Amino acid sequence: MSLLTSDASGVFVISVTPFLPDGTIDFESLDRVTDFYLERGATGLTILGMMGEAQKLTQAEARTIAERVIARAGDVPVVVGVSAPGLAAIKDLSAAVMDLGAAGVMIAPPGNLRTDSQIEAYYGHACTAAGKGTPVVLQDFPLSTGVQIDAAVLLRIFAAQTDVVMLKHEDWPGLAKVSALREAEGQGARRVSILCGNGGVFLPEEMARGADGAMTGFAFPEMLADVVSCAGQGQMDRAQDVFDAYLPLMRYEQQPGLGLAVRKYVLASRGAIASPALRAPGAGLDRAAAHEVDRLLARKDKRLKELV
Amino acid sequence: MSLLTSDASGVFVISVTPFLPDGTIDFESLDRVTDFYLERGATGLTILGMMGEAQKLTQAEARTIAERVIARAGDVPVVVGVSAPGLAAIKDLSAAVMDLGAAGVMIAPPGNLRTDSQIEAYYGHACTAAGKGTPVVLQDFPLSTGVQIDAAVLLRIFAAQTDVVMLKHEDWPGLAKVSALREAEGQGARRVSILCGNGGVFLPEEMARGADGAMTGFAFPEMLADVVSCAGQGQMDRAQDVFDAYLPLMRYEQQPGLGLAVRKYVLASRGAIASPALRAPGAGLDRAAAHEVDRLLARKDKRLKELV
Amino acid sequence: MSLLTSDASGVFVISVTPFLPDGTIDFESLDRVTDFYLERGATGLTILGMMGEAQKLTQAEARTIAERVIARAGDVPVVVGVSAPGLAAIKDLSAAVMDLGAAGVMIAPPGNLRTDSQIEAYYGHACTAAGKGTPVVLQDFPLSTGVQIDAAVLLRIFAAQTDVVMLKHEDWPGLAKVSALREAEGQGARRVSILCGNGGVFLPEEMARGADGAMTGFAFPEMLADVVSCAGQGQMDRAQDVFDAYLPLMRYEQQPGLGLAVRKYVLASRGAIASPALRAPGAGLDRAAAHEVDRLLARKDKRLKELV
Amino acid sequence: MSLLTSDASGVFVISVTPFLPDGTIDFESLDRVTDFYLERGATGLTILGMMGEAQKLTQAEARTIAERVIARAGDVPVVVGVSAPGLAAIKDLSAAVMDLGAAGVMIAPPGNLRTDSQIEAYYGHACTAAGKGTPVVLQDFPLSTGVQIDAAVLLRIFAAQTDVVMLKHEDWPGLAKVSALREAEGQGARRVSILCGNGGVFLPEEMARGADGAMTGFAFPEMLADVVSCAGQGQMDRAQDVFDAYLPLMRYEQQPGLGLAVRKYVLASRGAIASPALRAPGAGLDRAAAHEVDRLLARKDKRLKELV
Repeated sequence: MSLLTSDASGVFVISVTPFLPDGTIDFESLDRVTDFYLERGATGLTILGMMGEAQKLTQAEARTIAERVIARAGDVPVVVGVSAPGLAAIKDLSAAVMDLGAAGVMIAPPGNLRTDSQIEAYYGHACTAAGKGTPVVLQDFPLSTGVQIDAAVLLRIFAAQTDVVMLKHEDWPGLAKVSALREAEGQGARRVSILCGNGGVFLPEEMARGADGAMTGFAFPEMLADVVSCAGQGQMDRAQDVFDAYLPLMRYEQQPGLGLAVRKYVLASRGAIASPALRAPGAGLDRAAAHEVDRLLARKDKRLKELV
Repeated sequence: MSLLTSDASGVFVISVTPFLPDGTIDFESLDRVTDFYLERGATGLTILGMMGEAQKLTQAEARTIAERVIARAGDVPVVVGVSAPGLAAIKDLSAAVMDLGAAGVMIAPPGNLRTDSQIEAYYGHACTAAGKGTPVVLQDFPLSTGVQIDAAVLLRIFAAQTDVVMLKHEDWPGLAKVSALREAEGQGARRVSILCGNGGVFLPEEMARGADGAMTGFAFPEMLADVVSCAGQGQMDRAQDVFDAYLPLMRYEQQPGLGLAVRKYVLASRGAIASPALRAPGAGLDRAAAHEVDRLLARKDKRLKELV
Repeated sequence: MSLLTSDASGVFVISVTPFLPDGTIDFESLDRVTDFYLERGATGLTILGMMGEAQKLTQAEARTIAERVIARAGDVPVVVGVSAPGLAAIKDLSAAVMDLGAAGVMIAPPGNLRTDSQIEAYYGHACTAAGKGTPVVLQDFPLSTGVQIDAAVLLRIFAAQTDVVMLKHEDWPGLAKVSALREAEGQGARRVSILCGNGGVFLPEEMARGADGAMTGFAFPEMLADVVSCAGQGQMDRAQDVFDAYLPLMRYEQQPGLGLAVRKYVLASRGAIASPALRAPGAGLDRAAAHEVDRLLARKDKRLKELV
Repeated sequence: MSLLTSDASGVFVISVTPFLPDGTIDFESLDRVTDFYLERGATGLTILGMMGEAQKLTQAEARTIAERVIARAGDVPVVVGVSAPGLAAIKDLSAAVMDLGAAGVMIAPPGNLRTDSQIEAYYGHACTAAGKGTPVVLQDFPLSTGVQIDAAVLLRIFAAQTDVVMLKHEDWPGLAKVSALREAEGQGARRVSILCGNGGVFLPEEMARGADGAMTGFAFPEMLADVVSCAGQGQMDRAQDVFDAYLPLMRYEQQPGLGLAVRKYVLASRGAIASPALRAPGAGLDRAAAHEVDRLLARKDKRLKELV
């Protein structure tokens, strides 16, 4: 399979890991949800991230899942999350998944980093651990990691670590950062692909400021693809119309900690996975929340009909 | 002026503090924005909170502002933020503003609290500092304070500190907490008013789960009032229609750190304050962000017209 | 090998992992340092903790080290650190090391836990992951984990999770916690062994308050054993005399982040390991620090001679 | 009174604020402890810091204390802590105390700073708030503030903010930082006085690496003065002998949160203040801790006699 490059664009869907209610991996659903993502416009997949319940998997399970998704995805690039407290785990998992045909690996900074120079030094070590030539996605997600990375620091990392080909942008607020990075490129900095996370809630603005697409797991990847495509064609109002129709649901899905249960509930209701179950200690939606999601889904459908 | 009670409901607007571009307080705009809030449905005001740039004020300025707003607001209750690292400051400011006619004070937990018992003990000390009989609003805002308070801990505080008459609810995710508190009341716990913050982004769901209203500074208080009113009459679809029209803008205003600049920009463009200036070290919107806000405002107007 | 029980006492040395300067594991030194610890009074060993550079090891390396140390230690109980962000890793590693003959596993709370109930719930899940009947050491180390655990919460965990047989006590300040736990036992709470960490810097006071010994990696385990032994015989002044002679060095070794380099430097200078090397990204002592340690070692020797 | 300069050296004692058991300020003891410090070798005083219970004081009380201590201290320079969440409070208090004759102000970074550029920018704003020409002490205390400042960032701040004349050094580990700053001076960086905090537990090493003295509140300032003096004369062994005699007590006093109670207990037992009381919500030593301190005091006396 081909490797990730700094030209990557479109929608890389953060894939869920389907489980049966008893906690075992549901491989049939894993195939189904992979197909589901690809049929709805995914240009790439990202697996074994926080929203893929990677921490709840044994190493053996993680590799089996990576192997299965990579094979199923065919020519579509698959990025694998390998963030870990230690470099040894990053090295091991990176080597394994690149052997299996992954397009690259994604690495978030460990939460104990504080100063600019610590962050820069970390990505030097992390890229070495990932292996020379392994494309790396830098996940910039301060709300979750507690690590704030200046645009200037990102640019220094991009300059020093040429294996970093993509930024998963989910700083919040982060729009000015997208602009700052694109401006720096205009002045000669190496181009890096910018795909946006944060549940997608700023996707129209991010695209207008020069992002290349989305990397998030919102349960309607077709919307992400539509927004990215419209933005690519300069149809910003159409992009925003579609986006706005989904926003009340998207906002609900973005709740920290609860979001994955919402996402799996929606995916199950769409038939993409058999069960909305999270592996313990995660819990599914309670009745009140499920009712709220159902209502938002119905309203979204109604609004979309008005748009046509 | 009458004191805040646990029956309080409606919309308590978190008021901005207007400044002139040179950083001096713009008292004329302070009067104007106070009127603006009241004319657009505010049933109360909250001043000297984080979004009121309270930390940038001298103590003398803070008291002058409190005096002016309380006088201008007339019969409308004014809650004053008195959160501080130490109890002495809480005691001083509480005494001063209650003398001036405040309806109550709002206190967020200091960021060094960790265990349940530390949090419980803190509110004992804080209520003593605020003064026996001073109505207290407990601000539960973990994203900003770093302090997570269990529903069970809130209930113990409510039971022990009868001066706590209101919860400013802005946990995220927090919908289940609203339900848990209301259920506990059904089983005999003392009722406390629940007004919701977090920029208002979950207001329809919060109202449906039993909240009494909103306490947030979104630049269109008439929307908050409309949502609360519709919800009170059981018109949940209408409430959500109005809410959805504003949501793209609301989402933009909710960006941490940047939100106040957005809010002041919108208030200035609505004529409620003369200048969008923040006092240093805060910065206003740059051109790209202002352009994005203008676009969202125009789209909001268009959408509202479709709704009528 | 026999399992750890709540009667455990003495000195469990936190073992280093020796590396050659090129970063490969130095198994010959691993055997030597194991013998070194046992010959100097260790009643147990703890491996694969933070000070064992566990995060820098591959899973395969970790198991090889566990197997080698457990075999070498013979009848002496070996506790294995299995803390991890996810339960799956805890389950995997616990099962593996218990099969190899470990006496128990040690688990620190992940840094995202905040409320009392989250902490309690976590240890329920963690004990399940470790496996029914696997003795668990609860590591209470807020300076490193950021998680503060009330004595009352510890007692609830001890009551609910009977597999927790030992507390690695390194809260700071923490003397009152030792007393509170022992008092609770006097009133019927289940007894749990308390071994003290924090580099040993409060060992005399901890022993006087009822601790059962030390679990730390100070490079002179014979001192820890001597203090514990003297305290056990009520010779508190002798215990403190010995302790005081080492305290200037111990204080130097307790520096966060730097301590392991000091410890390995001393162990190498004592002949217990061949090289003071840390695996990357760790760095050894620079010349100035090495000079300071040499000076403290010489002064310690001189002081000990005066004591005899 | 003369202003603080970058040539300052010796021992600046962090002064306690004495209270009567009922919580009122004990001004008679305030005079007495001021004299006590000066008679025991203090070359300066630092008031209204964390260990001066500044947060428990009203603004009026804080000014009264500053006025009284500054007057009592005569020609001895008094540094006043003015750290606050907002710049307005820094501006107000700085102006007030400089008017009263303070030698300078001390400012720690607020806990929300993360990136290098945020820290640099903050000290620009803070120095402006303190007032042009007001000598500023930068307090570098990551254990308490959560803000880690690189040596390179300190040097940039020193270069940009010429009013910063002193570093209160209490990073941990921090010895390499002292060396790095002194080396930079050797290469042309502006000299800044370095006084060391952290309870004094690394004072001998810090002096050997080029520090100018101590700024801490250990209850035996005569020891700090002795160590600084011996080090100044190159008598490093004598310095360390004295230090070691006090170290067991010093270690006990350094416990976070508990240390001030220990310090006041010792000061009261030495007759420097009338009561060991902390203002609420602080608590004094319980019986077990007081017993431990008494024992350490007796052992310290015995050891000192052996040294003569």
